[in-house]
Amino acid sequence: MNVYSCLEQVREKQPLVHHLTNWVTIFDCAQVVKSFGASPVMAHAIEEVADMASLASALVLNIGTLTPEFIDSMKKAALAANAKSIPIVLDVCGAGATKLRDDMCFKLLNETRISIIKGNASEIARIAGEQVNTKGVDSGEVESDLKSIAAKLAEARECVVVVTGKEDIISDGVNCLSVKNGHEVMGRVVGTGCMAASVIGTFAGAVPGNLIEAAAAGLCCFEVAAELAVKNGAGPGTFTGKLFDEVYLLDKAKIEAMQKVEKCAATTL
Amino acid sequence: MNVYSCLEQVREKQPLVHHLTNWVTIFDCAQVVKSFGASPVMAHAIEEVADMASLASALVLNIGTLTPEFIDSMKKAALAANAKSIPIVLDVCGAGATKLRDDMCFKLLNETRISIIKGNASEIARIAGEQVNTKGVDSGEVESDLKSIAAKLAEARECVVVVTGKEDIISDGVNCLSVKNGHEVMGRVVGTGCMAASVIGTFAGAVPGNLIEAAAAGLCCFEVAAELAVKNGAGPGTFTGKLFDEVYLLDKAKIEAMQKVEKCAATTL
Amino acid sequence: MNVYSCLEQVREKQPLVHHLTNWVTIFDCAQVVKSFGASPVMAHAIEEVADMASLASALVLNIGTLTPEFIDSMKKAALAANAKSIPIVLDVCGAGATKLRDDMCFKLLNETRISIIKGNASEIARIAGEQVNTKGVDSGEVESDLKSIAAKLAEARECVVVVTGKEDIISDGVNCLSVKNGHEVMGRVVGTGCMAASVIGTFAGAVPGNLIEAAAAGLCCFEVAAELAVKNGAGPGTFTGKLFDEVYLLDKAKIEAMQKVEKCAATTL
Repeated sequence: MNVYSCLEQVREKQPLVHHLTNWVTIFDCAQVVKSFGASPVMAHAIEEVADMASLASALVLNIGTLTPEFIDSMKKAALAANAKSIPIVLDVCGAGATKLRDDMCFKLLNETRISIIKGNASEIARIAGEQVNTKGVDSGEVESDLKSIAAKLAEARECVVVVTGKEDIISDGVNCLSVKNGHEVMGRVVGTGCMAASVIGTFAGAVPGNLIEAAAAGLCCFEVAAELAVKNGAGPGTFTGKLFDEVYLLDKAKIEAMQKVEKCAATTL
Repeated sequence: MNVYSCLEQVREKQPLVHHLTNWVTIFDCAQVVKSFGASPVMAHAIEEVADMASLASALVLNIGTLTPEFIDSMKKAALAANAKSIPIVLDVCGAGATKLRDDMCFKLLNETRISIIKGNASEIARIAGEQVNTKGVDSGEVESDLKSIAAKLAEARECVVVVTGKEDIISDGVNCLSVKNGHEVMGRVVGTGCMAASVIGTFAGAVPGNLIEAAAAGLCCFEVAAELAVKNGAGPGTFTGKLFDEVYLLDKAKIEAMQKVEKCAATTL
Repeated sequence: MNVYSCLEQVREKQPLVHHLTNWVTIFDCAQVVKSFGASPVMAHAIEEVADMASLASALVLNIGTLTPEFIDSMKKAALAANAKSIPIVLDVCGAGATKLRDDMCFKLLNETRISIIKGNASEIARIAGEQVNTKGVDSGEVESDLKSIAAKLAEARECVVVVTGKEDIISDGVNCLSVKNGHEVMGRVVGTGCMAASVIGTFAGAVPGNLIEAAAAGLCCFEVAAELAVKNGAGPGTFTGKLFDEVYLLDKAKIEAMQKVEKCAATTL
């Protein structure tokens, strides 16, 4: 697939990406979107979320620091986005940790139409209603499980499912892409998962007709920039600043030389 | 005007700058104030905002992630500041985007006495009740319109109006200053507008007797530091850290060599 | 005492550190915990705080941007932590500034069992019900007062008290440790106090059996990393990124060469 072409569309269309996200990484989510040349907007008041979502090219929901009232605002924003067929990314951040998180994820999934569900292995497994050996996520056997879980969840929810990890899996239930870019230091940095969801939203806003490729291209660009940041000496603290600089400087040559996006082998549903 | 003298007063008086601001850039707003040698405090509970505002030398209100309850806290803080003649900066962040933002800006403007209204061209135009071709903000013709809009709004609201952009305009309805420092990379960095409001508040707290000069001096110092940060290799991600370092290191020689503050030519009201 | 051994325990046990903290420095609090190799989680909804606190190895409460509802969530989390003997750090951020802050601190101290109270000289003095000449905190005479105040408060509240400053004081009412690491630039950086509380929580989660040593070791490691960051050229803006990098890179040799932890001389209660 042509990752760079997706990046070009982001830079040309400069999609407005409306977020209802968590308070820990809200700055980084905004800055990564802006570094890609798009426009982030963060707005959560229930009195304005429908207006704001209607103006946007994509909506990103992240439950990292949820409250029930915040989920009400998310639902209202999502219904406004649904009414205008604006793609919605749901980051099921921390699903499985508490009953509230699970309940609120299912509320959003059942009462609105989510376009892309994004989480790490254990979060996605929880949302899919499955058990997964999260610790073993890097082994071949479990990878294949994860692909199957992602495909089943995508089919059940009629959406794209993104499982982030050393290998990212993107499935729409039939087709599956994997992205193997990135660097292990990302596991030491708060907010890489949240930023990944914002990037997926940005690319979905620019390439709404092909969400599986949009998600894969976004993750690939983000993770190529991460590799370049580490090459430039980033530790876990100086990583984010250098990451944004590298996102801004991404070009065709870098992406084509470094991109690791592949079709997954067939999995049994 | 003597920009450096204003900076000296900030460093000597170390004003306490009380913020009710948005959750995206709240850290950067605090850090920029602290880098200037002043003391930021962020407090929004309606039970304490009047106490805190009464202790402060300036109050900064930013509606970036507003809710109606948050605006109630802003109003209470503003009335306490008014009672003690403490200058108030209102950043009309996102005015025009939703009805809620417009309504809440007008509520604050009508029910409290705001000292300085700050926004970009389209935000200020909205608050002034005018149409402006925001995309054309850099052209001569529209610049002159902006000066006129700023002057009319300043006169109508009996306050200082700051329009940020490639050329910042500061008007009290009669007098007008322009600041032409800064760098285009600032448009790629989340929070530069919010930080500008915090800096204006900091200088207003130190130089309360001349708000038009305080605002111009604050913007000039902030933008000179930004130019120095870019000279030191800052990209959009590494910008903010380097900016704060440069703010801390500002001195008389740098400011006098680089400052671009001018009286505006006469405009027709 | 063996500071490095405490750090090793943090890295081995990777404690989950649940925070209800302020919105200004929430990212930095999370990142400093993660840089030490532990797991931060920020969750404040009253519907989930008890579940989350029960999963954690330590609970960190910081009242920097408090509301009464937020304090209700803190109380619920603290009671859940108390039920499982999970150590709790309370950062009495801004105590003394408003009546609300004082009232809410006393509410938490009276209605839950706090393991470690942490503040700067004037905050701790306020919570102890004493007057202290905060400006003179560096002088010998007042230092001795502070040690006495810390010891009395520790005895009265049956907890460990940490007073941060040029010399940090850690007292359990009988024993007293002091940490003299750190660098003056930390006074120019927003969030160093909040991060210190998060680090104390992280070490308390890993070494729950000896909270006075855990607190001293955590502060020492944090401040040694700060010294290294400044050695590497950090100004107030680039400090935090470099600090996290240095936290990640701390090793036995660095700590043993640089640690300045001592038993305090006897103080009169």
